[in-house]
Amino acid sequence: MDEFNAYVETNAERFIEELKGFCRQPSIAAQGIGLEEMAELVRARMEKLGVDVRLMPLEGGPPIVYGELGEGRRTLLIYNHYDVQPPDPLDEWVSEPFDPQVREGTLYARGVADNKGDLLARLQAVESYQTTMGKLPLKLKWIIEGEEEVGSPHLPAFAAEHAELLSADGCIWEAGGKDMKERPTITLGLKGIMYLELRAHGASSDLHSSLATIVPNPAWRLVWALNTLKDENDNILVDGLLEHVVEPTQAEMEMLAAIPFEGDMMLANFGIPRFIRGLTGIEALKKHLYEPTCTICGFKTGYIEQGTKTVLPRTAMVKLDFRLVPDLEPEMILDLLRKHLDRRGFTDIEVVTGHGEHPAKSPPDAPVVKAAIAAAEAVYDQSPVIVPLMAGSGPMYPLTQAFGTPAFSTGVGHARSGAHAPNESIQLDDYYQGIRFIGELIRRFGTV
Amino acid sequence: MDEFNAYVETNAERFIEELKGFCRQPSIAAQGIGLEEMAELVRARMEKLGVDVRLMPLEGGPPIVYGELGEGRRTLLIYNHYDVQPPDPLDEWVSEPFDPQVREGTLYARGVADNKGDLLARLQAVESYQTTMGKLPLKLKWIIEGEEEVGSPHLPAFAAEHAELLSADGCIWEAGGKDMKERPTITLGLKGIMYLELRAHGASSDLHSSLATIVPNPAWRLVWALNTLKDENDNILVDGLLEHVVEPTQAEMEMLAAIPFEGDMMLANFGIPRFIRGLTGIEALKKHLYEPTCTICGFKTGYIEQGTKTVLPRTAMVKLDFRLVPDLEPEMILDLLRKHLDRRGFTDIEVVTGHGEHPAKSPPDAPVVKAAIAAAEAVYDQSPVIVPLMAGSGPMYPLTQAFGTPAFSTGVGHARSGAHAPNESIQLDDYYQGIRFIGELIRRFGTV
Repeated sequence: MDEFNAYVETNAERFIEELKGFCRQPSIAAQGIGLEEMAELVRARMEKLGVDVRLMPLEGGPPIVYGELGEGRRTLLIYNHYDVQPPDPLDEWVSEPFDPQVREGTLYARGVADNKGDLLARLQAVESYQTTMGKLPLKLKWIIEGEEEVGSPHLPAFAAEHAELLSADGCIWEAGGKDMKERPTITLGLKGIMYLELRAHGASSDLHSSLATIVPNPAWRLVWALNTLKDENDNILVDGLLEHVVEPTQAEMEMLAAIPFEGDMMLANFGIPRFIRGLTGIEALKKHLYEPTCTICGFKTGYIEQGTKTVLPRTAMVKLDFRLVPDLEPEMILDLLRKHLDRRGFTDIEVVTGHGEHPAKSPPDAPVVKAAIAAAEAVYDQSPVIVPLMAGSGPMYPLTQAFGTPAFSTGVGHARSGAHAPNESIQLDDYYQGIRFIGELIRRFGTV
Repeated sequence: MDEFNAYVETNAERFIEELKGFCRQPSIAAQGIGLEEMAELVRARMEKLGVDVRLMPLEGGPPIVYGELGEGRRTLLIYNHYDVQPPDPLDEWVSEPFDPQVREGTLYARGVADNKGDLLARLQAVESYQTTMGKLPLKLKWIIEGEEEVGSPHLPAFAAEHAELLSADGCIWEAGGKDMKERPTITLGLKGIMYLELRAHGASSDLHSSLATIVPNPAWRLVWALNTLKDENDNILVDGLLEHVVEPTQAEMEMLAAIPFEGDMMLANFGIPRFIRGLTGIEALKKHLYEPTCTICGFKTGYIEQGTKTVLPRTAMVKLDFRLVPDLEPEMILDLLRKHLDRRGFTDIEVVTGHGEHPAKSPPDAPVVKAAIAAAEAVYDQSPVIVPLMAGSGPMYPLTQAFGTPAFSTGVGHARSGAHAPNESIQLDDYYQGIRFIGELIRRFGTV
């Protein structure tokens, strides 16, 4: 792989310029901004590689970029997404979110870690491979969607309809990267999610707050309802929910024990004095990976600007994000939550369904995982950290596990990349290593 | 008063055009918009009447418009404010908030009811009086501030410093008007207020919501803290607060019983099926006037736009409005609330003090109140409804009761005026009657 690596080095500057170009194009799924343009950028880049690539239209959503390249005994499916999170709060960005800037070896831009960096690094790895090593030793399939950040609403149906396009011997998932101590990670699964809104309604218009004596306040209704969902010790109280949570097996606990959990570094990074419940070490990690969540992602009611407005709001809305561990399922949350609220008299509170995704897990001894571990050892000069389950979510289940395809995730990010946060970033050195990792993975999965 | 009334009729159109001019000038105290310009408009209008008027600068706030006109045995103090509430939510206005429009005899504009209509009606009444009746039979004093809607932060100190400017035999307060059944009202007091923010802080930046397993969520902290402040039956739970609430006397209950409470009309108006606790009639009215409130006026955290953002917020903020009945005081609320939160482990929640105002009450047999009742009977051909205490708030205490000056409030608004809400309005006929009421009041209070 020496020539491959030399090629990456020689082309490093151009590769970063290409990445900046990808990051300059806003592609915000939540706001429907720039998605078609971004899909076209990706398609054109893939075409340059000789990929048999096409935009597959989705009814009600931006197109899926699907591509195939190469032939071989095995097929590797590559999943990425070309959309990004909204950039707000804008005032916390040091440089503009869609004006990529390098500062001290780090590239800052919305989406650079999640996951335009990985999307492009994989294409540049294929360019490097073809230029220096010749024909690919396996078949690559790409499925790149534009709705991951809004929960991939159309992907499960697409996958079910186009099962033949997705058949593969293994899958590399969208992103990932180095942990707090700069160790590469390989992740074998992820949590599911149920994102939803609770809405409460009061009077037909905002009223003078003096009327709060007798006119119900929808904001209070939401507070009281929310308070029944989780207690101050972070225990989820939704009736029956915890009964569906599977405890980690002994083998999984051993895998957990092998994961270095850098609690103090994380605390310093996040600027907090302690974790929830004061947890440390493997107990914190166990909660992080094996417990579901019920998170207030947003709450809006009434007057929220500076200064004083004495108003009784007409409506209140909260956005809730449940992260699901096996064997929880999205539909189950909706059902349990509705019954929980009704049972406590909150029949007036509307549950507005957002996106849902199943949790997913792959076995650590699958060939694609073994190839990934060997590739990581070659590139990073150390054994990667194997993470059984990622705390985040994604549409892994309908693309892979549903067809029995093992999948893993890694990428060019790092523990402080700030996916979804202001000043999202990757380190340039991680990026070059990430390209080399893909080269190694192609070689090993295709030939070993 | 026939010539007075004829003059009002003849000049009706010009009077409304003048009022539109006042309403066209935004003057939003909470946002610091247009206040100097509005003060100057008011000053100029008063100068045209021959008022000895001046703008009295306030350190850190817009000027107070102070004026004196006329001589006589008695002095009537007129209190108004030239600032208005913020106009949002903008998308609920039928016509633009600062583009006054008449539709079917009703004038719509931000501030027209609260309280530019009254401010100007009183000046136009003086114009009408002087033109048709000659010299004023009493001395009028105006104190018109520009910060009422943010809680009059500078007025108490100003009043204490300029006690001589405020000495009077009676005071007419800013606004008011007709009830649900078009009956004129005269109000003898108002509630106090303590407006504040609670703020909770989590990580030093917004994080991916997958970290909600172990990183504390400030929004949940606020929900749990709020839940200890008020229960689902609308009982305020702040330790010790209710001990300071004085029940209405037998005499006050009789006054309440004489107030027609149009519960069904209010319910229809507000678009709600029932009042809090299912109260009706005098019980609802008693709660409305004699119970304090603890109102969520605003709650903001995390992502509140359309769509999905899976974010763990770094900060959460709630705006709370406590309305105070005698003998509650603003400072008392701050003290009780802080202790209440600390006692329950919410020492991390910051209490940010907003504006506070004392409650105020005047006796129903004060000469200025008697003159007002007689004037109302003459203009409206019916006895006014006497309301012992208004559910709203204002700086009445430091301007009047603190000096022993009795005060009452009435005005050109009506029960559906929507002060603080979109589509704020007054009825033109009420406006003309309001001008005539002031003429009668001047005559009766000055000569009887």
